[in-house]
Amino acid sequence: MWGGDNSPACNLNGVQSFIENHPDLLDSVSLFLFGDSVSISEHLGEELCAKKYIQLIDCQEVIEYNDHPVKSFLQKTESSITKGFHYLKEGKIDVFASAGNTGAMMVGATQAIGVVEGISRPVIASVLPRECGNDGIIMDVGINADCKPEMLDKFAVIGSIYAEYVYRIESPKVGLLNIGEEEEKGSILTKTAHKLLKENKRINFLGNIESRGILNEGADVIVCDGFTGNVILKQAESFYEIIERRGIKDEYFDRFNYENYGGTPVLGINSNVIIAHGISNAKAICNMIKLSHDVVESDITSKIVEAMNSTLV
Amino acid sequence: MWGGDNSPACNLNGVQSFIENHPDLLDSVSLFLFGDSVSISEHLGEELCAKKYIQLIDCQEVIEYNDHPVKSFLQKTESSITKGFHYLKEGKIDVFASAGNTGAMMVGATQAIGVVEGISRPVIASVLPRECGNDGIIMDVGINADCKPEMLDKFAVIGSIYAEYVYRIESPKVGLLNIGEEEEKGSILTKTAHKLLKENKRINFLGNIESRGILNEGADVIVCDGFTGNVILKQAESFYEIIERRGIKDEYFDRFNYENYGGTPVLGINSNVIIAHGISNAKAICNMIKLSHDVVESDITSKIVEAMNSTLV
Repeated sequence: MWGGDNSPACNLNGVQSFIENHPDLLDSVSLFLFGDSVSISEHLGEELCAKKYIQLIDCQEVIEYNDHPVKSFLQKTESSITKGFHYLKEGKIDVFASAGNTGAMMVGATQAIGVVEGISRPVIASVLPRECGNDGIIMDVGINADCKPEMLDKFAVIGSIYAEYVYRIESPKVGLLNIGEEEEKGSILTKTAHKLLKENKRINFLGNIESRGILNEGADVIVCDGFTGNVILKQAESFYEIIERRGIKDEYFDRFNYENYGGTPVLGINSNVIIAHGISNAKAICNMIKLSHDVVESDITSKIVEAMNSTLV
Repeated sequence: MWGGDNSPACNLNGVQSFIENHPDLLDSVSLFLFGDSVSISEHLGEELCAKKYIQLIDCQEVIEYNDHPVKSFLQKTESSITKGFHYLKEGKIDVFASAGNTGAMMVGATQAIGVVEGISRPVIASVLPRECGNDGIIMDVGINADCKPEMLDKFAVIGSIYAEYVYRIESPKVGLLNIGEEEEKGSILTKTAHKLLKENKRINFLGNIESRGILNEGADVIVCDGFTGNVILKQAESFYEIIERRGIKDEYFDRFNYENYGGTPVLGINSNVIIAHGISNAKAICNMIKLSHDVVESDITSKIVEAMNSTLV
């Protein structure tokens, strides 16, 4: 629960917001709050903390925003991140979510939890609202700056599972982000990846999609290297910020607000980990908890493990 | 003059618009119009065609949008593109501009005109409006999908010259597009390019710039590989299109209208070539002619040749 620029107040307000907005889920979830238990009790009040769906896990250290990810993860054993991963690994919790130090979260995801066999690196996704309806999913958005074609092929499989089981999109359409719609266009990476995706029978491959088509065309899942995905994500964020700053009100552009999405799961690891934006406010934290719930419900980790096992055979 | 989706009507309206809007330039320019001379005379009228700044060059073939660039350039010797490059090579004109088949234009630029010694590949730039004031320049935006670090280093030099002599920006600040501001962040390409740019004494290097900072921060010239630049450009275009479609009126976003920019020079070749958007309307063609004038006035090709010569020494 510690972690993020607005911790702990916004985080705890987010917990309260989740409880108020999702009363139907409270019978089936237990919220383990990792942080200074005295502060948490004071903020939430004794009555709430006594509820059976609230568990306080006292943590007396904090991994700061600029702490070295590996060192701090190993040394600050009393931090919410290190302790949270410990609980996750032991199976005491089903999912661990935090708006804290992303690097330390990735260390936990890859070192403490580990990558699914058959996957070389985990991947993170982002959601981009499409003008014509549902949101689209784009991955990777930042942890794999340099990719091999085989990685994009894996992203397509993982992304399809994510779209199908978490976002309930049947037979999601996969697009390869490229700089031309024709098969022979693009970089060495995308030209080779195109061939792999075309042959991949586990996905519903649409073909290449240009960046101008992300927000209004048919791809439910767009795959790209993490450099390109990060560029796209941050450019979209910057457009939304300018639109906000200029006082433009528009219901489509409102959907770009990061608060609505609650973060991204780290996909391709052996458990459920959610990374939220460092600037998360109460609404974002509430949605982070809801996303955590949906990810556990979807059993997406098992689905990814199965898909990779059948590839290995 | 033939070439582009709206040719010849919009092209010729663009010529008329240039004549009306820039009377001060008519003493110093000669407009060579490559196309069917009968149609041109009919459209512009005999009086205008008799002016000393108008020259009609009759062309009876057209390289279509989907023609094979190399083959059509070689075979359609009576097309406006092939004939235009012939005139340019012979020094009968100082600059050749067209909204026609981009591939054929690039064949002309690299084969008929040739690349400056010391440069492996030419580069094209795009202009992105910055909220805080002047426009920014980004390159490459599409012809070099795969780049080596040395290429980004050259783009930085060429971009600085372009910004200084065509856009009149003194000591233009150069940013390296990256997915983190810190020096050690990024892909293999950007990490290595960062080192080269830092050591490059011909440029005013700011450091890394994220895509969220393109539209509102301090870099006058942003360098990136052509894949990333093309993704950024098309994403910006798509945002602008959505803003237009949703009826949002805003003077900052109006500046994204491609009509305002008139195209991009092909930089790093031994003469002046301007490529305009295939969908160019009259306003865009007018601005293409103005840009062509400015590029010749700036003598940018000589400046690039000089810079490369002194690198070679």
